[in-house]
Amino acid sequence: MKALMFDGNLRFVTDAPVARREGEALVKVIRAGICNTDLEIVKGYSGFHGILGHEFVGRVIESPEASQVGQRVVGEINAGCGTCNLCRLGDSRHCAARTVLGIKARDGAIAEYLSLPGRNLIEVPDSLSDTEAVFAEPLAAALNILEQVKIDSSTSVAVIGDGKLAQLIILVLAQTGCMPTIIGKHQEKLELAKNAGARSIPVNDTANQVAIDDWLETSKLKNEFDVVIEASGSESGLPMALALARPRGIVVLKSTHHKFTSLNMSLVTVNEITIQGSRCGRLRPAIDLLASGIINPLPLISGEFSIEESIFAFKQAATPTSMKVILSVS
Amino acid sequence: MKALMFDGNLRFVTDAPVARREGEALVKVIRAGICNTDLEIVKGYSGFHGILGHEFVGRVIESPEASQVGQRVVGEINAGCGTCNLCRLGDSRHCAARTVLGIKARDGAIAEYLSLPGRNLIEVPDSLSDTEAVFAEPLAAALNILEQVKIDSSTSVAVIGDGKLAQLIILVLAQTGCMPTIIGKHQEKLELAKNAGARSIPVNDTANQVAIDDWLETSKLKNEFDVVIEASGSESGLPMALALARPRGIVVLKSTHHKFTSLNMSLVTVNEITIQGSRCGRLRPAIDLLASGIINPLPLISGEFSIEESIFAFKQAATPTSMKVILSVS
Repeated sequence: MKALMFDGNLRFVTDAPVARREGEALVKVIRAGICNTDLEIVKGYSGFHGILGHEFVGRVIESPEASQVGQRVVGEINAGCGTCNLCRLGDSRHCAARTVLGIKARDGAIAEYLSLPGRNLIEVPDSLSDTEAVFAEPLAAALNILEQVKIDSSTSVAVIGDGKLAQLIILVLAQTGCMPTIIGKHQEKLELAKNAGARSIPVNDTANQVAIDDWLETSKLKNEFDVVIEASGSESGLPMALALARPRGIVVLKSTHHKFTSLNMSLVTVNEITIQGSRCGRLRPAIDLLASGIINPLPLISGEFSIEESIFAFKQAATPTSMKVILSVS
Repeated sequence: MKALMFDGNLRFVTDAPVARREGEALVKVIRAGICNTDLEIVKGYSGFHGILGHEFVGRVIESPEASQVGQRVVGEINAGCGTCNLCRLGDSRHCAARTVLGIKARDGAIAEYLSLPGRNLIEVPDSLSDTEAVFAEPLAAALNILEQVKIDSSTSVAVIGDGKLAQLIILVLAQTGCMPTIIGKHQEKLELAKNAGARSIPVNDTANQVAIDDWLETSKLKNEFDVVIEASGSESGLPMALALARPRGIVVLKSTHHKFTSLNMSLVTVNEITIQGSRCGRLRPAIDLLASGIINPLPLISGEFSIEESIFAFKQAATPTSMKVILSVS
């Protein structure tokens, strides 16, 4: 089958084997999305080799659960062992032996077919288009923040980063009645967030601490926010977030990247900041929110390509002006 | 007056002026303690120049609150502006314009006299000795953890570090019914914690990530703890804490030191760890706990010196085997 592989090099292949894992469902992929984590994997994050991609919508071709066959589905990307304490308590996302679609020991979604346990699949209502459904996984990651941190109309919130995840977070935050502030480098992306109800603050140079300190001085935003969400995927994002958070404020860390970050952790101690790591979320509420029509992710799409163009699509997704890139697979 | 100064060099002086700030109380210091933060200040942390020390018991000589004169007191070390939002809400500890005794823009306690606002002073009951009372401030810092994080008998807790703050934390944790694990480098200090009810695990080499990884592999403690408290004051403490915490676990950061820490923050995101910065606590519950006799800090004392010996005492406090060093001032 056709697939986008990473084995140290990024390669589009046409001869990848269709492999359904024992006891799992086989899904024919319809659309797949490219996420920042995919771009980081190619830079060395997570050490993953295999078929890339974890955002998808597809149709179930085979499944041990007969009722699933023929369903159009999205999928929870973490596949737990099913037997450890965490799995039994329903938290396969943190199972130590988990595999993760296109991220950890499991081939991903930028391929004609993928394999996932039947229990990971969630049917997509007819009212949602294929392209909208691809946003279920990243939208779930954005919604996860609200499960971890209390945010309401009285909370002052900043989002660092103006990329596709940051934009989804802005859409989610707008539902809480808070007026989020987005801080980013790209004028067009900031405009998009403004259209979604955010206040936008540009930042130009985050190359070093001096540049960040200068910006903090000028912007007068130091210690101004109850909650700061770091979704820039950049090393400079977290130091900036720590400076923006008020004493006893919360910094939500969404970014995963391959580099070590050099931090003045005494700031965390002295200001008693809470740093909350945040990864995947539950897909069902994301699908429901998309189906409700309250959130429209389509303006976040900056390109649609066929799977044969996936190498080019990947390069496009890595350009600074890019947003969500969607691949049509079938 | 006699005082221990830091102005880039550590100096014992006899001609420091007695300076009561306008509207404040003047306290004649009886005993003062040396804290790890003092040792860090001498290495460059916080950029403080002035009289060192923030752990003390003393007697009020002058005060705008007449009833305070003659009282034996300990003191909240953060002096807020009194007018900002945080101060009005009772959180002077995080007032942006605050001064901090012996740490920030305010001369400290290793001196014959100190000045603090009357509202910062808390009377010490007669049942407590001077030396016990000196522990009120660091004990409050330990108790603060329980105000931030829920810990009960079912919580698995590790403390990294076996120094004086770590030992106070162990004493506090023992009150919750949890059986804390202490991880440290010094056999005698680990024994002390064992006597207080802790399980102890030695760690020898934390000089680099490879050494830490080896230890994690051997100890089989990776991802084992609900809560990990970093109180080692060492750069290697936080990376180790992040590895010891279970997915969705909590890392409490007590250390303040002068160096930047290089961290793999993706671990925080992927394991959805919460890092909770923790600094000073409320003195009243600490005094009450000491007065109750439930906690006995006296075994933590490794040396008592006169203020004239404070330079030597400071050097003693900085040796690896040292615990709490107390200075007799009057």
